[in-house]
Amino acid sequence: MDIKVIAFDADDTLWVNEPYFRRTEEAFCELMGGYLSQHDIERELLKIEIGNLPLYGYGVKGFILSMIEAAMTISDKTISIDIVERIINLGKAVLDEPIELLDGVEEVLTALKGKYRLVVATKGDLLDQERKLRKSGLGHYFHHIEIMSEKDDANYLKLLRHLDIQPQELLMVGNSLKSDVLPVLNIGGHAVHVPYHITWAHEQIDNTIENDRFRSVENIKQVLEIL
Amino acid sequence: MDIKVIAFDADDTLWVNEPYFRRTEEAFCELMGGYLSQHDIERELLKIEIGNLPLYGYGVKGFILSMIEAAMTISDKTISIDIVERIINLGKAVLDEPIELLDGVEEVLTALKGKYRLVVATKGDLLDQERKLRKSGLGHYFHHIEIMSEKDDANYLKLLRHLDIQPQELLMVGNSLKSDVLPVLNIGGHAVHVPYHITWAHEQIDNTIENDRFRSVENIKQVLEIL
Repeated sequence: MDIKVIAFDADDTLWVNEPYFRRTEEAFCELMGGYLSQHDIERELLKIEIGNLPLYGYGVKGFILSMIEAAMTISDKTISIDIVERIINLGKAVLDEPIELLDGVEEVLTALKGKYRLVVATKGDLLDQERKLRKSGLGHYFHHIEIMSEKDDANYLKLLRHLDIQPQELLMVGNSLKSDVLPVLNIGGHAVHVPYHITWAHEQIDNTIENDRFRSVENIKQVLEIL
Repeated sequence: MDIKVIAFDADDTLWVNEPYFRRTEEAFCELMGGYLSQHDIERELLKIEIGNLPLYGYGVKGFILSMIEAAMTISDKTISIDIVERIINLGKAVLDEPIELLDGVEEVLTALKGKYRLVVATKGDLLDQERKLRKSGLGHYFHHIEIMSEKDDANYLKLLRHLDIQPQELLMVGNSLKSDVLPVLNIGGHAVHVPYHITWAHEQIDNTIENDRFRSVENIKQVLEIL
């Protein structure tokens, strides 16, 4: 392998994220509990979130707006304005969560720094990801943050041009097969999958991947063995 | 001048933007007209927008959330849920506006392409700016889009490192003295101010700028005379 740049996904790869969304979703279900079962509320919310993705993209602000929209749909616009306020406050709380690093992250970054150019490649809002990187204390390990509106083949090709490297010189490390692995393999890069114990429904895929540029590991520390 | 990179602000420099926000603000004032005067509604909205900037950053989604919050504050939470729905739809309409290029933009980009590395340097949401760049048909002129969470000295320094250039090799072209000119001059770069006929209150400053790395022009075409 002739790796020059190692790109790390951020949420649920470097630090805990999805549990905060899950907790917020549960609080949302409680707010809407009088209207539908938890299962149906979650389904309605996911439908609205996915429907809004082309317009809003990823990140907490779009999530808040989708929760408000879901509350109106689920209640047939009979919810009180207090509920809207509580949804906004739930969302603002997500934007203020502490950063909890995942096991092994700091050890891996310390070992790789200086040997490779390290970047963060993530979806979501730039300001929010910058906040998390600052709070994480990991900022000094990275050359910069790449925000991608969607982690698809076209945007990874753009990333390669931007980094001025060949596909085989990129190693992407992340928890999402759909966003961090498949498109990177498609464009000729290397990918390491580090599964997180929960995954947002929209990121789940059923594929089994066989590719000599792909490895799945249990802990991010194993990235060091691969290199 | 030894310019290598010319960075263009996007909104109200390459294409019309602020008028869409103004029109939306007017529609918002109409929705809330029963509660306060237009002047007081605008003041309340601006206060809430600025208060939310550290959490939401720039862009349409934060604007929608701030309008909803302002509607709750202005009405003391007596507005109907229909108003919230109409605010969300007003916001979604902004995300779907057509792109109207400003006079001279295409001529300038055509003349500069190949001679300098051209980038877009803007605040706001990546997805939304990508949509606008795609709709504008200007994408092929630019090396890439830089999204900046805030256009301040620190982030322009980060931009220089990212572009791998010296301060005096950057020329920034934009309509905001506060965001596109002052911080660029502070870090040692060149800046051209191309005023747009309306400016968001939060971007307005009173300074008079005297600096030999600064020029103010009436039309973006005059950038060609300066270089």
